[in-house]
Amino acid sequence: MGLYRRWRQLRLPVLQICGLRTAPVPNPPHWLAERLGLFEELWAAQVKRLASRTQKERQTIKITLPGGQKVDAVAWNTTPYQLAQQMSSTVADTVVAAQVNGELYDLERPLETDSDLKFLTFSSAEGKAVFWHSSTHVLGAAAEQLLGAILCRGPSTECGFYHDFFLGKERTVRGSELPALEQICQELVAAAQPFRRLEVSQDQLRQLFKDNPFKLRLIEEKVTGPTATVYGCGMLVDLCRGPHLRHTGQIGGLKLLTNSSSLWRSSGTPETLQRVSGISFPTVEELRAWEERKGEAELRDHRRIGKAQELFFFHELSPGSCFFLPRGTRVYNALVAFIRAEYTRRGFSEVKTPTLFSAKLWELSGHWEHYQEDMFVLQPPGSDRLASSLSVCSTSHSTDTLALKPMNCPAHCLMFAHRPRSWRELPLRLADFGVLHRAEASGSLGGLTRLRCFQQDDAHIFCAPDQLEEEIQSCLDFLRSVYAVLGFSFRLALSTRPSGFLGESCLWDQAEQVLQRALEEFGEPWDLKPGDGAFYGPKIDVHLHDALGRPHQCGTIQLDFQLPLRFDLQYKGQAGVLERPVLIHRAVLGSVERMLGVLAESYGGKWPLWLSPFQVVVIPVGAEQEEYAREAQQRLQAAGLVCDLDADSGLTLSRRVRRAQLAHYNFQFVVGQKEQSKKTVNIRTRENRRLGERDLTEAVQRLLELQNTRVSDAEEVF
Amino acid sequence: MGLYRRWRQLRLPVLQICGLRTAPVPNPPHWLAERLGLFEELWAAQVKRLASRTQKERQTIKITLPGGQKVDAVAWNTTPYQLAQQMSSTVADTVVAAQVNGELYDLERPLETDSDLKFLTFSSAEGKAVFWHSSTHVLGAAAEQLLGAILCRGPSTECGFYHDFFLGKERTVRGSELPALEQICQELVAAAQPFRRLEVSQDQLRQLFKDNPFKLRLIEEKVTGPTATVYGCGMLVDLCRGPHLRHTGQIGGLKLLTNSSSLWRSSGTPETLQRVSGISFPTVEELRAWEERKGEAELRDHRRIGKAQELFFFHELSPGSCFFLPRGTRVYNALVAFIRAEYTRRGFSEVKTPTLFSAKLWELSGHWEHYQEDMFVLQPPGSDRLASSLSVCSTSHSTDTLALKPMNCPAHCLMFAHRPRSWRELPLRLADFGVLHRAEASGSLGGLTRLRCFQQDDAHIFCAPDQLEEEIQSCLDFLRSVYAVLGFSFRLALSTRPSGFLGESCLWDQAEQVLQRALEEFGEPWDLKPGDGAFYGPKIDVHLHDALGRPHQCGTIQLDFQLPLRFDLQYKGQAGVLERPVLIHRAVLGSVERMLGVLAESYGGKWPLWLSPFQVVVIPVGAEQEEYAREAQQRLQAAGLVCDLDADSGLTLSRRVRRAQLAHYNFQFVVGQKEQSKKTVNIRTRENRRLGERDLTEAVQRLLELQNTRVSDAEEVF
Repeated sequence: MGLYRRWRQLRLPVLQICGLRTAPVPNPPHWLAERLGLFEELWAAQVKRLASRTQKERQTIKITLPGGQKVDAVAWNTTPYQLAQQMSSTVADTVVAAQVNGELYDLERPLETDSDLKFLTFSSAEGKAVFWHSSTHVLGAAAEQLLGAILCRGPSTECGFYHDFFLGKERTVRGSELPALEQICQELVAAAQPFRRLEVSQDQLRQLFKDNPFKLRLIEEKVTGPTATVYGCGMLVDLCRGPHLRHTGQIGGLKLLTNSSSLWRSSGTPETLQRVSGISFPTVEELRAWEERKGEAELRDHRRIGKAQELFFFHELSPGSCFFLPRGTRVYNALVAFIRAEYTRRGFSEVKTPTLFSAKLWELSGHWEHYQEDMFVLQPPGSDRLASSLSVCSTSHSTDTLALKPMNCPAHCLMFAHRPRSWRELPLRLADFGVLHRAEASGSLGGLTRLRCFQQDDAHIFCAPDQLEEEIQSCLDFLRSVYAVLGFSFRLALSTRPSGFLGESCLWDQAEQVLQRALEEFGEPWDLKPGDGAFYGPKIDVHLHDALGRPHQCGTIQLDFQLPLRFDLQYKGQAGVLERPVLIHRAVLGSVERMLGVLAESYGGKWPLWLSPFQVVVIPVGAEQEEYAREAQQRLQAAGLVCDLDADSGLTLSRRVRRAQLAHYNFQFVVGQKEQSKKTVNIRTRENRRLGERDLTEAVQRLLELQNTRVSDAEEVF
Repeated sequence: MGLYRRWRQLRLPVLQICGLRTAPVPNPPHWLAERLGLFEELWAAQVKRLASRTQKERQTIKITLPGGQKVDAVAWNTTPYQLAQQMSSTVADTVVAAQVNGELYDLERPLETDSDLKFLTFSSAEGKAVFWHSSTHVLGAAAEQLLGAILCRGPSTECGFYHDFFLGKERTVRGSELPALEQICQELVAAAQPFRRLEVSQDQLRQLFKDNPFKLRLIEEKVTGPTATVYGCGMLVDLCRGPHLRHTGQIGGLKLLTNSSSLWRSSGTPETLQRVSGISFPTVEELRAWEERKGEAELRDHRRIGKAQELFFFHELSPGSCFFLPRGTRVYNALVAFIRAEYTRRGFSEVKTPTLFSAKLWELSGHWEHYQEDMFVLQPPGSDRLASSLSVCSTSHSTDTLALKPMNCPAHCLMFAHRPRSWRELPLRLADFGVLHRAEASGSLGGLTRLRCFQQDDAHIFCAPDQLEEEIQSCLDFLRSVYAVLGFSFRLALSTRPSGFLGESCLWDQAEQVLQRALEEFGEPWDLKPGDGAFYGPKIDVHLHDALGRPHQCGTIQLDFQLPLRFDLQYKGQAGVLERPVLIHRAVLGSVERMLGVLAESYGGKWPLWLSPFQVVVIPVGAEQEEYAREAQQRLQAAGLVCDLDADSGLTLSRRVRRAQLAHYNFQFVVGQKEQSKKTVNIRTRENRRLGERDLTEAVQRLLELQNTRVSDAEEVF
């Protein structure tokens, strides 16, 4: 596959067919000329076919527009774009693709039958996907031209797009090449190349991509029908389902971001590919705004804040585990104490379960079958290590193989089952902050987002089927009140049974109805994700949005019909008969470590008082007040508040106040001669609001009140 | 070795030589007759030898009596017992052995030279050892007679004695045989058999035990000198260093307790032995008192309390780890919260460190060399398990071998070292409740006393050498105030450098002096244990005494000169030069799990309010008050108090009150019609003190006050 030379450099006469207006156009290699030639030939045939069809029978169809208005259109001729133009120029300018009877359509693809027409704009998730997917065609074309790349895949992602391509076994794409690549992208965008949708037969498809072994493999694996679609855009022809933008000129701002390698995992031998990722927007202004937000986000990166505020650090001797320094532990414990207080209010019982369990437990729970690769497995000392280690390699395992728990649920099932249970004990809500270990690949580790060792605000509710709805509602209420305190909004989604679900359909029916009723009763908007549930039960996904509007998945509410079966959990029902409880897995913070990272970023390091590891700094005006300042500090510390002292005589008072504010101390207590003699403190907030002189004892009392009520704006309401 | 028949049953004519007064005496097997014959022969010769020696040269020697008085005695003739009689009959009656120039002596063994004489009584640990060691001879004799046992070993223990013997490969001793065995012991005791000490040559020794292969092996392994001692007592002749009681009649009360099997681990093939254990006292009254205490202790056994109160349980799928149920977790968390509050007061900073570390850390800390066998070691998933497991068996290990932390200190050293440190930061007191794992042998596991998985109130203080004394004093003060709240007295001991200590002598000198000064300043009595320190530093041992006066070692204060060296810990001193900190390991509770067990036993399950998982039960007088009772319960629960409801209409009010008191609920809140209408509660304590009617809100407030101040007698001071 080392045949392809870079052909961008050749700069031979313009190929008319490309229609490039501004870009200097090189001489393409023979296979590209062939492919383009064939594409144009087939395109011409398709255009002709459509035209003759319309001529033969001019059929009028009814189109229902987004507002509900019905209009007439010509089958195989009228396009969604034409209708958008009819509606308004704003619609026509902002629309990126259409949805025709639920199917995604190119704006220039003629309508065929009576249709319900919707328009997608960049503001929706689907619209972004079309926009970014179109952008990655531009990137692919640039990579072909500049690097002689053999294109493999170019999907959109949640936040942009990337293109994977092959440069030969030795060659990688370098960061220094991104500017040149981006330059070509800009030229292609400026050229406003149209995206042309072409339907081809399997034979034609193979003919088009006969020089790209990766696409040939994809065709073999993925293309099952008699026809497929390809898209032409400028000099690029690519196998693609679409839809796309009308033309590349709709991309107002585009930026390439990273280069890395990836793996071609399709059948055959794996191959190392090159990946370039980027982002794009309808206008250059939106790109600039995004860059600003990104800069802000980087400033807010929890790893940066964690280091700057001495919250935590990582060490190579314990990869994937976090060392929480005193200030970080303070935040951590405040989060745990918050959840504990909620547990008390909400009838949850905290328990403590072991860390190491026999593999037999994991066999019973099913983790051994489904999750073993992500677990830390060991032999107890004193067992014949060689013998038992060898057996780990086989499918069986020695009787005393142990594994660190990746989840608490099996331990809670043992706890439920350790003695007979009665309906009177239900719902039994067991909460556990136990240490969990998951063998995440070292490549996936990064900050607090993904760890090998973490704790969750994990709880399992064992309840009778008729208690389910109320429990789900309580779980939702729990989520809402915690997220409100933390300053998050959130969005719920109900994920229903997937294909291959376990258990009886009627049980699933009931459970899904219960979840749906609970969601409706709850009153917040929610989405339905059919088929997205776990195989063991339906679930409610929770996406919280932080102060920057970024989504995070932290909390969860999942039903489980399988574990009660596997552990044969039973309770004596009111009628005296043994019955099977339903199990709810739920978490609000999720991983406490990860939540701490999310919060650090959401607050940008400006912690609310109750979580703050920088609550107060006492600043003596002069050396004479240092003793009193120290006394004040001790009073605050004895009350359990975090209080530091800045008696640095090398800095002026105002410099020290400023320093404390930059360090995000919620409050600065300045003490001069007057304050010393009156046992008062002069209070400022980190936003430099001057709250004036207050009695020290009263100030401590007020801080404790504000801390205990977990207000978000202690500096405002002091 | 199946030659020996039971000969107790034969009941043939009395052997004059045994001097048994009450026991029916059987016909001993030939080997016993031979052994006894030889013993008597040698004994007669020894008596004659001693007599002739005294006759030849009657040498007067000076003996210093316990009070300091010096008396004359005759060498090779006067015995310690004669001198005890001269002192007083009380002394003679209570003495169990003598100490002559520091050497333990039988009371009937003639003195040889000028001597410093001391007497041992049962009240001392050494006296008990002599007493119980003598008792095990009685047990051995009984086992020979009743079971035809081949005796192996019969030591005293910390609390009694046992005898291991062989009954052939098939035969075990049964619990049902203990009464008969004990009966013979009683007969032998009643016979007041004298213990006769005989010095024999190696040849004579081998001749005496030619029929006991176990003793022959012991002789081969242990007897190194030209002579050894054996003791005759009734029909028993045993190889033994002594000393013993004067005669078996001194054993006023004896009881056999358990039967089990044990292993003969001497050279040669291991052999399964039978073990019978027992206890004995100078008087039958002391035995009765012990039995009572034992009954009480069993009633207080934390495993019994843990089960009865639903505090915790154990499960075979996680051996050596405890599952804390909601009530147990409540106690656990209250203990941790107590220590956290002390940390805040005392300037300790809590941190959180990982559980899994690279073996490289343990190599650095020295645990790999000294502690590896007690650690849980594993390979991360994804490593080549076979290859790396194999390398565990060799002395080296693969680079990514991991181990669960058995201690927090190395992690805290990493934390100290993760950035440059200044003298201004010292003392740095890092506290950690991290989960620790130690691979205790499964045989040693039992309840909460010894676990494989536990947490400590562990802290490490990094300080400058000149801060050491103050830090040690603070540590001692910390211990004292926590133990006072928990109701423990304690006793301190200073353990100084052992032979083979690491580090410089002058450093040890200084450190030992610092510890000594701190102890003296502290004002509580303390003992010196020369040579008992760890090789890495001197330490202060803390033995607490629970409510039953039983000792437990929980807290510790240890200096460590080695870890700061191994981790190359440094801080910038006041002079700007890098200096090495001193490290103090300290814990007050020790293992929180174990402390919870100690407390359960010490309180006998009657928890003080602040720790109690049974704080209040609300009891409605009739069904009409159930709603108000439930409201009261919710009020208490919302305040964070543990409150249950007993609305069992099948039981009378007084029965429910009694039931609550038996369950050790600190308070019973009875609510009738009057209480309901006035929003009050009628309060009783678990000792059935009637505190009368109180306003509900005030009662909740008062309980919170009492809980927060951690008083031990909330029921008294309510």
